[in-house]
Amino acid sequence: MYIFSNILGVFVFDEEFNVVDEILFKNLEDYNNKDKFIEQIKNKHKNLKEPNNEELKKMIIYFKNNRFFNDFCNKNLQLAKLDIKSSVKDDILLIQAINSIEELDKAINILAKRLREWYELYNPEISKSIENHEKFVEEILDKEKGELLEKLKINPSDSIGADLGQEDLEPIKSLTHQIYDLYQLRKAQISYISTLMDGLCPNIKAVCDAIVGAKLIEHAGSLKRLSEMPASTIQILGAEKALFRHMKTGAKSPKHGIIVNHPLIAKAPANMHGKIARTLADKTSIASKVDYFQGKFIGDKLRKELEEKFVK
Amino acid sequence: MYIFSNILGVFVFDEEFNVVDEILFKNLEDYNNKDKFIEQIKNKHKNLKEPNNEELKKMIIYFKNNRFFNDFCNKNLQLAKLDIKSSVKDDILLIQAINSIEELDKAINILAKRLREWYELYNPEISKSIENHEKFVEEILDKEKGELLEKLKINPSDSIGADLGQEDLEPIKSLTHQIYDLYQLRKAQISYISTLMDGLCPNIKAVCDAIVGAKLIEHAGSLKRLSEMPASTIQILGAEKALFRHMKTGAKSPKHGIIVNHPLIAKAPANMHGKIARTLADKTSIASKVDYFQGKFIGDKLRKELEEKFVK
Repeated sequence: MYIFSNILGVFVFDEEFNVVDEILFKNLEDYNNKDKFIEQIKNKHKNLKEPNNEELKKMIIYFKNNRFFNDFCNKNLQLAKLDIKSSVKDDILLIQAINSIEELDKAINILAKRLREWYELYNPEISKSIENHEKFVEEILDKEKGELLEKLKINPSDSIGADLGQEDLEPIKSLTHQIYDLYQLRKAQISYISTLMDGLCPNIKAVCDAIVGAKLIEHAGSLKRLSEMPASTIQILGAEKALFRHMKTGAKSPKHGIIVNHPLIAKAPANMHGKIARTLADKTSIASKVDYFQGKFIGDKLRKELEEKFVK
Repeated sequence: MYIFSNILGVFVFDEEFNVVDEILFKNLEDYNNKDKFIEQIKNKHKNLKEPNNEELKKMIIYFKNNRFFNDFCNKNLQLAKLDIKSSVKDDILLIQAINSIEELDKAINILAKRLREWYELYNPEISKSIENHEKFVEEILDKEKGELLEKLKINPSDSIGADLGQEDLEPIKSLTHQIYDLYQLRKAQISYISTLMDGLCPNIKAVCDAIVGAKLIEHAGSLKRLSEMPASTIQILGAEKALFRHMKTGAKSPKHGIIVNHPLIAKAPANMHGKIARTLADKTSIASKVDYFQGKFIGDKLRKELEEKFVK
C-alpha cells in the first residue's frame, strides 16, 4: 500500500490504486501540521510505501474529480497568497525606505532650486550667503509662526531685492514650509532605517553606518544576496558602469562604488581611498554573513579594527 | 552758456566751459524730479543751450575730480539697485509660480510612485484599483487623524498584502501625508497664478485658462515678448523640437505646442486639433496684445467666439 499527501489531505492507496483510507485537511493550518496526520495514518496502516513516479501518475488520476477541484484550487490560492504575504521581510521594507530617501533627495533638490530662484527676487543677499539648501530653508523660515523671517532682509534701500507684498510672499512661504517638511520626513525615514537595521543587520550598520549599509543591501537586492557576495564585489557595488567600461575599453578599474560615501573614505585623502575601500569591503562582507546567519554581534570589533588601521 | 545735467545735479557752463552755476541733487529723489530743477535754472539764466558732442567732451573734464568721484559712484550704484529692484514685475512672479508647478508635478510623481510600491506591500488590492495618484493619496489617508485608513484593507486572510506593524506603517503614512501636502501646495500655487493673471493678463486668462496661459508667458519669457509674437509662433510655442526636426528632415510640421493642453483641444477629436490650435493661437495673440497695452477686457468675447466655432 502507498501513502500520498497533498494540500487536500493524506491518502492511502492499495496496490490497484484505489483509496482505502484518507484524512482530509480542513484548512491550511492542518496542511502546515501535515506531519502529525501522516504519523497518524502510518500508525494505523503498516508497511506503507512512498510511490515512485510511475505509481504516482496512476494515483493522481484519483484527484481528477470535480469533488476535489474547487477545494484544490482554493487551498492552493490561499497557500500562494500566504507565501506572498510572508515574503515581505524586513530587508524589503529597508529597500523601500532607502529608495524613498533617494527620491526625497531628488524632490528636495528640484524644489529647493526653484525656491532659491524665487526667493532671490525678494532677498538675493541672504540666499547667496548660504550655500547649503537645508540650512538655507531653516534660516529663512520662522518655524513657530510658519512665516518667512522679515528681519533677514537687509535695509530695503540697500537690498536689490524687490519689495514684495504679503500676497506675493505667501506662495514662497508655502514652498519653503513644504521643503522644510520634506527635510523632516527625510530625517524620520533615516531613523526608521536605523531602527530596522538594528534588528536586521546590526553588524553591517556598525561597520558601514545606516545609509551606506542600507544602500548596499538595496543594490545587492537583499541581505541574502549581499551575504553571498565576495568582498571584491561589495567594494565596487554601485560602480557597474565604470567596471564595464574598464572591461570593454581597458580604462582604469573602479576602486569603490557605494562605499565611497562612508565617512572613513570621504574624509581620507584621495590616494588612500582604494586601500580603505578594500578593507571596508572586507569587513562589510564578514558583517553581512554574520547578519544573514544571525550570528553574534561583532560589529563593534570590526569597526574598531577598521578605525585603528586608518584613523590616526 | 550751456546747461548740462547728470546724476549729480544740474550745471551751467559758460563759453569757456567753466561752471558758473549749479544745483546739486541731495538724493535719488531729487534726480527723479530733475525736470523741476532744470526749470529753476532755466528761469535764472536766459538763452541756455544744449551742448553738442564736441562741447560735451570739454565739459565732462570738470567731473574728473575726486570731489565728485564717491558721490558719482554711490548714486549710480543706488540707481542700478533701484532698477534691478523694480525690474521684478508681475510676469516674473508668474513665471516663477508656473515653474514651481511643473517642478511640484515632478516631485509628486517621483514620490507617489515610491509610495505605491511601498504601500502595495501592505495593501496591493487598493493601490491597483485606483489609477490616479491624487485620488489614491486622498483615499488611503484619514485627513482628520493623519492616519492611514485601516478599514481599506480587505479581509486580511484574503489579501496578499503583508500584515505590517504600526512601526512599519508609520513611514508609509508620513510619506502619504507629505504627498497630500504637496498636492495642497500645488492647488494653492494655481490659485495664486490665477490671481496674478487677473491683474496682469485677464484676456489671456479668459482665452487660455490660467495654466496654459501662464505656460505660454513662461515659454515666451515675458508678457511683452508674447505680445510681440505672431499667432503662428504662439501656436507651436513649446514644440520647438518637432519644428526643427520638420525643418531639418522634412518630417511633419508640428500642429500645436503648449496650447494642446487647452481643454478645447484636449477634448476635441484628433483631426480637429490643428484647426482649433490655429484659431486658439489667433485669439491668444490678440489677447496678449490687449493685455500688454492694458486695453479693455475683451477676453469673454474672444472666448465666446472660440467656443461658438468649435463647441456644438
